[in-house]
Amino acid sequence: MPPFNIHEVDETIHGRVRLGIMTFLAATGTADFTTLKTHLQVSDGNLSTHLRKLEEAGYVLQNKSFAGRRPLTQLSLTKQGRSAYIAYLDTMSRLVATSGDMA
Amino acid sequence: MPPFNIHEVDETIHGRVRLGIMTFLAATGTADFTTLKTHLQVSDGNLSTHLRKLEEAGYVLQNKSFAGRRPLTQLSLTKQGRSAYIAYLDTMSRLVATSGDMA
Repeated sequence: MPPFNIHEVDETIHGRVRLGIMTFLAATGTADFTTLKTHLQVSDGNLSTHLRKLEEAGYVLQNKSFAGRRPLTQLSLTKQGRSAYIAYLDTMSRLVATSGDMA
Repeated sequence: MPPFNIHEVDETIHGRVRLGIMTFLAATGTADFTTLKTHLQVSDGNLSTHLRKLEEAGYVLQNKSFAGRRPLTQLSLTKQGRSAYIAYLDTMSRLVATSGDMA
């Protein structure tokens, strides 16, 4: 197995908070801002910054609607985001496989 | 399996260049600065910054010696670094396991 190459790791997903967002949305399908914030235990500003980066990369979609009079923002992975996430998991599982016995 | 918790990810190791350093040293035992720099394809400054962070965390050790008149710096994982790296791999393999079928 070729040595682990850090340049294969998608930095857009690798950042810890962004990784938490991608993992949570991959598991739940959709989530609103507050649910994500509570799960990840991060501040509003921090979560907004990382969501914007994932949106700019085309990995996450924000759907804005109203629940009664209350604005509701639902977040979900795009098709591109889901395949980038699968590629990321593949890269990290190769890391775990190549390093597992060496460490 | 409990949902993936980003706060279990050791940020000191998770950064892409630092992860490359830890993975390379776990595989090779020791390496000198130039070998690491070539393998990781990063600048001198970038590598020095990340090596210092790993040293400050007690994860990497620098051994300075001379090869003839040439100064030689050999880098290696400390015992603490090796166990932190194993714990990191464990966290990431749980991520891959919990997300594998959902993605």
